[in-house]
Amino acid sequence: MLSTASVSAQSSSNYMRIAKIVVDSAQLENYTIALKEQMKTALKLEEGVLAYSAVQDKNNPTHITILETYASLAAYQKHTQAPHFKKYKSTVENMVKSLELTEVEPIAISAKK
Amino acid sequence: MLSTASVSAQSSSNYMRIAKIVVDSAQLENYTIALKEQMKTALKLEEGVLAYSAVQDKNNPTHITILETYASLAAYQKHTQAPHFKKYKSTVENMVKSLELTEVEPIAISAKK
Repeated sequence: MLSTASVSAQSSSNYMRIAKIVVDSAQLENYTIALKEQMKTALKLEEGVLAYSAVQDKNNPTHITILETYASLAAYQKHTQAPHFKKYKSTVENMVKSLELTEVEPIAISAKK
Repeated sequence: MLSTASVSAQSSSNYMRIAKIVVDSAQLENYTIALKEQMKTALKLEEGVLAYSAVQDKNNPTHITILETYASLAAYQKHTQAPHFKKYKSTVENMVKSLELTEVEPIAISAKK
């Protein structure tokens, strides 16, 4: 096998969190559109927004998990004040049935080069 | 801001899962050593093992979440038969208090270039 592993550009000073979200099933498509727009804009415009991995349970697609990586706690706090984030929050306010946030620390974040 | 977003090399045919693991607190350091060794070896030796993101809860470090990406279900099934995975499973057998596996589908996996 020729592939080698690389550790992505993440350091111990990064700020990471997991958001577990349950979405109203009737709003799932609209929710994912708003989420993808928010992710794309934040990664493009904000230096301190480093990565998002958003997935949905195969057997329960309204159950969504997002692993979020910011350069620092300050970068995350700045992100929560950004216009695109505020727009996302107000757009999805009535789509989200529950939201559980957990601060996490990396053990290892690795991917094929 | 100069950074642009990139979508990593993941396709809809990929097979993804989330493992939620609770580790015996007395064994946490040994567990993370075994986990990192397994991840590193699998990414190096197995073409179909694409990415791992392993994190632990900041306020509850024995609670570990791993987002796993394989090229396909077949690649995952092959992985479970690999010597390094079998070694990991036997090494951590008495360190793991609970294990919850969920198959997931990507909504969007994006990171800074």
